Amino acid sequence: MGSPYILVVVVIAEKALIAQIRRLVRTKANPAIVTGIGDDCAVLRLPPRAADQGDILITTDFSLEGIHFRRDWHSPVSVGHRCLVRGLSDIAALGGRPIAAFLSLALPRNLQTAWVNRFFRGLIGLAEKYDVALAGGDTAESPNGILADIVLLGTVAKGKAVLRTGARPGDSIYVSGELGGSAAAVRQMRRNNRKLDPAEYTRHFFPEPRIALGQVLREKGLASAMIDTSDGLSTDLAHICEESGVGAELQTEAIPRARVGKPLRDVDLDLVLHGGEDYELLFVAPHNKRIPSRIAGVPVTQIGQITPRRKILLTNRSGATYELEPRGWEHFRK
Amino acid sequence: MGSPYILVVVVIAEKALIAQIRRLVRTKANPAIVTGIGDDCAVLRLPPRAADQGDILITTDFSLEGIHFRRDWHSPVSVGHRCLVRGLSDIAALGGRPIAAFLSLALPRNLQTAWVNRFFRGLIGLAEKYDVALAGGDTAESPNGILADIVLLGTVAKGKAVLRTGARPGDSIYVSGELGGSAAAVRQMRRNNRKLDPAEYTRHFFPEPRIALGQVLREKGLASAMIDTSDGLSTDLAHICEESGVGAELQTEAIPRARVGKPLRDVDLDLVLHGGEDYELLFVAPHNKRIPSRIAGVPVTQIGQITPRRKILLTNRSGATYELEPRGWEHFRK
Repeated sequence: MGSPYILVVVVIAEKALIAQIRRLVRTKANPAIVTGIGDDCAVLRLPPRAADQGDILITTDFSLEGIHFRRDWHSPVSVGHRCLVRGLSDIAALGGRPIAAFLSLALPRNLQTAWVNRFFRGLIGLAEKYDVALAGGDTAESPNGILADIVLLGTVAKGKAVLRTGARPGDSIYVSGELGGSAAAVRQMRRNNRKLDPAEYTRHFFPEPRIALGQVLREKGLASAMIDTSDGLSTDLAHICEESGVGAELQTEAIPRARVGKPLRDVDLDLVLHGGEDYELLFVAPHNKRIPSRIAGVPVTQIGQITPRRKILLTNRSGATYELEPRGWEHFRK
Repeated sequence: MGSPYILVVVVIAEKALIAQIRRLVRTKANPAIVTGIGDDCAVLRLPPRAADQGDILITTDFSLEGIHFRRDWHSPVSVGHRCLVRGLSDIAALGGRPIAAFLSLALPRNLQTAWVNRFFRGLIGLAEKYDVALAGGDTAESPNGILADIVLLGTVAKGKAVLRTGARPGDSIYVSGELGGSAAAVRQMRRNNRKLDPAEYTRHFFPEPRIALGQVLREKGLASAMIDTSDGLSTDLAHICEESGVGAELQTEAIPRARVGKPLRDVDLDLVLHGGEDYELLFVAPHNKRIPSRIAGVPVTQIGQITPRRKILLTNRSGATYELEPRGWEHFRK
């Protein structure tokens, strides 16, 4: 191996990996990608309409082994899928259209090629579904565990991105789909320390980003502030409240609870309130706006109101009220 | 800590980190950044000229502890500087203009705030020098060591990016600055297993990206293929040759050797040929193009020619020729 810090094997492994990625992504041409994988930068040319009238959205999200996933609990296909969802969901939260993804991937030296192939199958399968090109990234050897960082580039009509800052007292608060389903899978795997059937916990293993819903909410001017529920309702609503300088009141029974497992059962309330990674959209709208109960095929439920007082309160059916502290979401940890 | 996978401290630490980053980067407004740190995505609006006429460049680069840097050898200021240089240099290699940076940063739980502050001082100091805004990113807890992934977004005139694919037989090969200076620092630190004085090894600890040089080479149509020397001359030239379907012949004595240490001495030839992370520009130009010996304040040296035969050959003064295999560059490894 020559001198100790010059090691051919790494470059060869990286070359093989890059060649492999190129083969995998060379499925169809994307007009936005002038030069994709294989140069120092990717070169993108946005369609004239988007380039003239549009703003550019960028988001980056880590998927780290032991923090965001565990190799013994998540199939490589699920890891690849969930890696990309993190970025797609951020684009959805601003009402944008995803264009291209860039992946930085660091792999431990002993990782099998089969794992990598199946990871890319999950990632690229989802990318194709949303017409997103994997256009570049970086590869490296990892000192410990699998490390991925996904970058998403998207567009949105100029000045029209739905930010976290637009909530006003009196606005109604809505959430799409159901909450707590992803966290329920985590709790179950922790308790039993073994894998679950992904089909019984789809929202955890193969969540769908709410791209179409986000676009409709933006185009029709329905949402005045929006975020995706990646960190959990209590934390994500606190983000909106903080950035908008407001508070909120939620009705406990109104919050849609996920049903998981076999037979199906409601998830625990603490998971509904604090569990992360459901990748639903949480948004507010002026109280006189009519919001359909289903948009782009996804159920939408009113769960509370924005208030002037900078606190988040939770009221249950019997009228008891308590303050909801943002508890955050820690993903995994061995 | 409540249930084992819900941990307030992580969110608080991340919130504190994000608030800290916001304070650090809120130095001056950047017209390209509509919404920076603090939403699901950053929102960028390119200046009309760039948006109408320009292509978008994107590059991502890992800086992983134990692979790209060592905490016992590199000051946090140097780590932050080198992290950003990796992306800036990729933009330079296409002749582009950097606009905004996005940082994904995962930190081990026990890392001191002082380290993070100094890391950002290095990164933001360099960003300001090149008028680049730190516009977003991600934060996470790291399972092991410091993990950074830097994303750079830049622009270049439409269709004018200098790619790796443009080398033709007969073209002359040039390199900026000197080679091997960064690798010499690595060899020295490995041998003595201790820190070096950064002032004696500037190219390693505080390399400058060749942004202005890359832009001049592109604007004046001087370079027909270009790459930055991040992986080392033998590997980076092989990239150009592969992507262009050509070979090359280098004259050993023509290659500019870095001088390092105190007193100054020439670095070893193997470091000149294979050492990475000098972040110089390696480019080719048609043989009848006059290339000044200094461009944008940086020396430029002809080191060989492109050939039709797909091999890279090295010829020394006495006429002996051998094949130069790409040896790659492994950065660090404990």
